[in-house]
Amino acid sequence: MDKIKFFFDFGSPNAFLCHKILPAVEARSGAVFDYVPVLLGGIFKMTGNQSPFTAFASIKNKLDYEQLETRRFVARHGITSFRSNPHFPINTLQLMRGAVAAQAAGVFAQYVDEVYACMWERERKMDDPAVFRSTLVDAGLPAEKLLELAQTDDVKSRLVANTESAVSVGAFGSPTFLVGGELFFGKDRLRDVEEEFLRQSGQRGGIAAIHHAAT
Amino acid sequence: MDKIKFFFDFGSPNAFLCHKILPAVEARSGAVFDYVPVLLGGIFKMTGNQSPFTAFASIKNKLDYEQLETRRFVARHGITSFRSNPHFPINTLQLMRGAVAAQAAGVFAQYVDEVYACMWERERKMDDPAVFRSTLVDAGLPAEKLLELAQTDDVKSRLVANTESAVSVGAFGSPTFLVGGELFFGKDRLRDVEEEFLRQSGQRGGIAAIHHAAT
Repeated sequence: MDKIKFFFDFGSPNAFLCHKILPAVEARSGAVFDYVPVLLGGIFKMTGNQSPFTAFASIKNKLDYEQLETRRFVARHGITSFRSNPHFPINTLQLMRGAVAAQAAGVFAQYVDEVYACMWERERKMDDPAVFRSTLVDAGLPAEKLLELAQTDDVKSRLVANTESAVSVGAFGSPTFLVGGELFFGKDRLRDVEEEFLRQSGQRGGIAAIHHAAT
Repeated sequence: MDKIKFFFDFGSPNAFLCHKILPAVEARSGAVFDYVPVLLGGIFKMTGNQSPFTAFASIKNKLDYEQLETRRFVARHGITSFRSNPHFPINTLQLMRGAVAAQAAGVFAQYVDEVYACMWERERKMDDPAVFRSTLVDAGLPAEKLLELAQTDDVKSRLVANTESAVSVGAFGSPTFLVGGELFFGKDRLRDVEEEFLRQSGQRGGIAAIHHAAT
């Protein structure tokens, strides 16, 4: 089985909430998630989409319902650390270039954990360059190296290529998952992502047990 | 346990797909769905919302993904009879007034089955008064009585009241379900609807078995 692609941008709280529970999905299913850094603003520009906060702002009841579903998701999965970021929306261009740089520097997993935590647990204003730099330094990450790499043409063009590739397989927002050739959008489809992985990997019989664990 | 409210309009294919599988949900959970006729156009007017076909028409990939999820739902639940209606969108005002009239006349369940089938299985142009009337006649329903009742102030105002009540509990589109005080939107949340019913009715242990049946 190929890895499951997880197209992510640090700016999406729904992608963060997925990030928090993917380790449990991996542990019980044997799936492995391949985190692909993309620029959500780029996806929006290429598809004509907008963030839910913008698109649904004028629709009565709709954002309230989105927030209710977020509370349900957080409660169901026992996520206690999630905080709305008071500086939202945050421009994530440097953070996402930094993610590609962290792949090149071999510190990707730690970088992703740290930046996600600063965005959606520690309420930091991560598009402030000084805050971003001190986050990396405090975490023991190679800050200067990452910031330098993030300005290279190679890193910039890799982020653009990732973003274009997400749109070419059907993405229009975040979080987006790709299981083999099957696309899934939204944190509420993680059960379907897991079931599709089990189906493709011939573990059909494990589905009932996994449901039990997920509820 | 109270019945689960299902706010429906014949114009929504997603509500029709729910209608097709609610009997299976009722049979295995003991839940009973209380069909509440509402005017989706009225909900859209009151909330500033639009149909997905309008709202997402200009967003690349998004309607393709909605259609993919519809195909998945249809396949998962073995629904073979679903057809897109070539006359879509269809003005459902008379059909929904007719539904309230059918409640008063004691023929509600049959009326709902017939009109839904004509909309999403038999491809009929149901906002053509002659087609609507012949549908009722062919089904052995009291056509003249229903058409007459549908024009009464009592029926008209009951449909308006149902629609306002849906918005007042948080609805903004279709299908919408209300389990006790818990609101759910969308055909893809039917599993959550069923789980919430089991939770409220103290059948927590039945959830794993139900998952198994649903997949």
